[in-house]
Amino acid sequence: MNPEPGHFYAVGVGPGAPDLLTLRAARLIEGCDALIAPRSERSEGSLALGIVQAHLREPELLEFTYPMTRDTARTRASWGSVAEWSAVRLKAGKSVVQITLGDPLIYSTSSYLLEALRERILGERIHVVPGISALQATASAFQEDLTLQEDRLTLLPATDLGAVAEALDRSETVVLYKVADRLDSLIDLLEAKGLLENARLAFAVEQDRQQLIRDLRQARGTQLGYMSVVLVRTGRKAWREA
Amino acid sequence: MNPEPGHFYAVGVGPGAPDLLTLRAARLIEGCDALIAPRSERSEGSLALGIVQAHLREPELLEFTYPMTRDTARTRASWGSVAEWSAVRLKAGKSVVQITLGDPLIYSTSSYLLEALRERILGERIHVVPGISALQATASAFQEDLTLQEDRLTLLPATDLGAVAEALDRSETVVLYKVADRLDSLIDLLEAKGLLENARLAFAVEQDRQQLIRDLRQARGTQLGYMSVVLVRTGRKAWREA
Repeated sequence: MNPEPGHFYAVGVGPGAPDLLTLRAARLIEGCDALIAPRSERSEGSLALGIVQAHLREPELLEFTYPMTRDTARTRASWGSVAEWSAVRLKAGKSVVQITLGDPLIYSTSSYLLEALRERILGERIHVVPGISALQATASAFQEDLTLQEDRLTLLPATDLGAVAEALDRSETVVLYKVADRLDSLIDLLEAKGLLENARLAFAVEQDRQQLIRDLRQARGTQLGYMSVVLVRTGRKAWREA
Repeated sequence: MNPEPGHFYAVGVGPGAPDLLTLRAARLIEGCDALIAPRSERSEGSLALGIVQAHLREPELLEFTYPMTRDTARTRASWGSVAEWSAVRLKAGKSVVQITLGDPLIYSTSSYLLEALRERILGERIHVVPGISALQATASAFQEDLTLQEDRLTLLPATDLGAVAEALDRSETVVLYKVADRLDSLIDLLEAKGLLENARLAFAVEQDRQQLIRDLRQARGTQLGYMSVVLVRTGRKAWREA
């Protein structure tokens, strides 16, 4: 798929390893006129831009420092300005790609940009290209099934431990994002439920600084940071045999 | 990542479009000595093999017709024979790749093969490469967020409508696999819950015969077959503002 003039593409670039990019993502990045790379306030460079480096053919580049805030209005406003930047170029017949870590529709800043773009350009000129998510990369790194047979998988942030406890009661697999500073209380919860043996923790999976932790007891008291994923198998829901 | 002698790779090839393959998957398929392509009893050829066709460099090929059954013992036995086939080649220093639609750890036959292989070769020689799942491709096709802010996502088969109803009550997004012949009763359930407007149905997403249905009322009485995915947004769980 080559980028079309006047079209926008939200492109997932996967969790970190350059070779977890899809062929479609690579082609779009190579062919686009303008490229938006998000960059968090906390990081030194754009991780997403590093992933796609080998595919850059000198597009016009917007490295956009987005606010790491839980303020929806501020978040929307800042993405509105990126949508405006994009709309000017799209209307001039340029193709624009926004790259994003993981998948553009899983806890991603692309959601805000897509929303703001839909107010400015025709929906048929907007495209989303899925990317490998940290959830999948974590399961692959540990070779733990996410779902088999009748299993239910729940993905949620670790921010609300009540919701986490509920998910653990009603899913065979639970994947938790944004674990960071809630790790110790999460470990307590898993221990209380007798699930600590079945939990795995990945930090920065598929990045150079990746850490895979099979025994969560060892992670108590550590501050691994934002990009931590915990995967818990609570059981298995087998087929009702025929 | 080039395949190493004596190593096994379970490789996800995505939902159907050849360009949703990852660069890592492409490289492993190009370099492997032996390749296992699953083929369901119901289909005419291996869909997975079609996806990777451009990357085949004449590996020794095993097209394995696996049983479409809900009989775990029969399923395990038949994958045991494939593990045996693989182990012979791995012990002779060959590299073996198994390709699978979507992601190898999401409702995938790879799970059985991995389990059977672990009894025969060293775990450190077994690798899993994630692939784009139908779940992600469906969300991308409809440009529907899977998760944002504090949202919970539940993925489950549509086989148990009680479990589906529960998931709809406790998740902001629910994705249902294996919808096929349960579609009409699922539509009834969504209607009863006032969620029919928020549901989308994809059949064979990213394949030539793809159908995207935004109004599920239109799908009543149809028999779309196995590869149907329904995505339902039940609401949104926003940040508690700082």
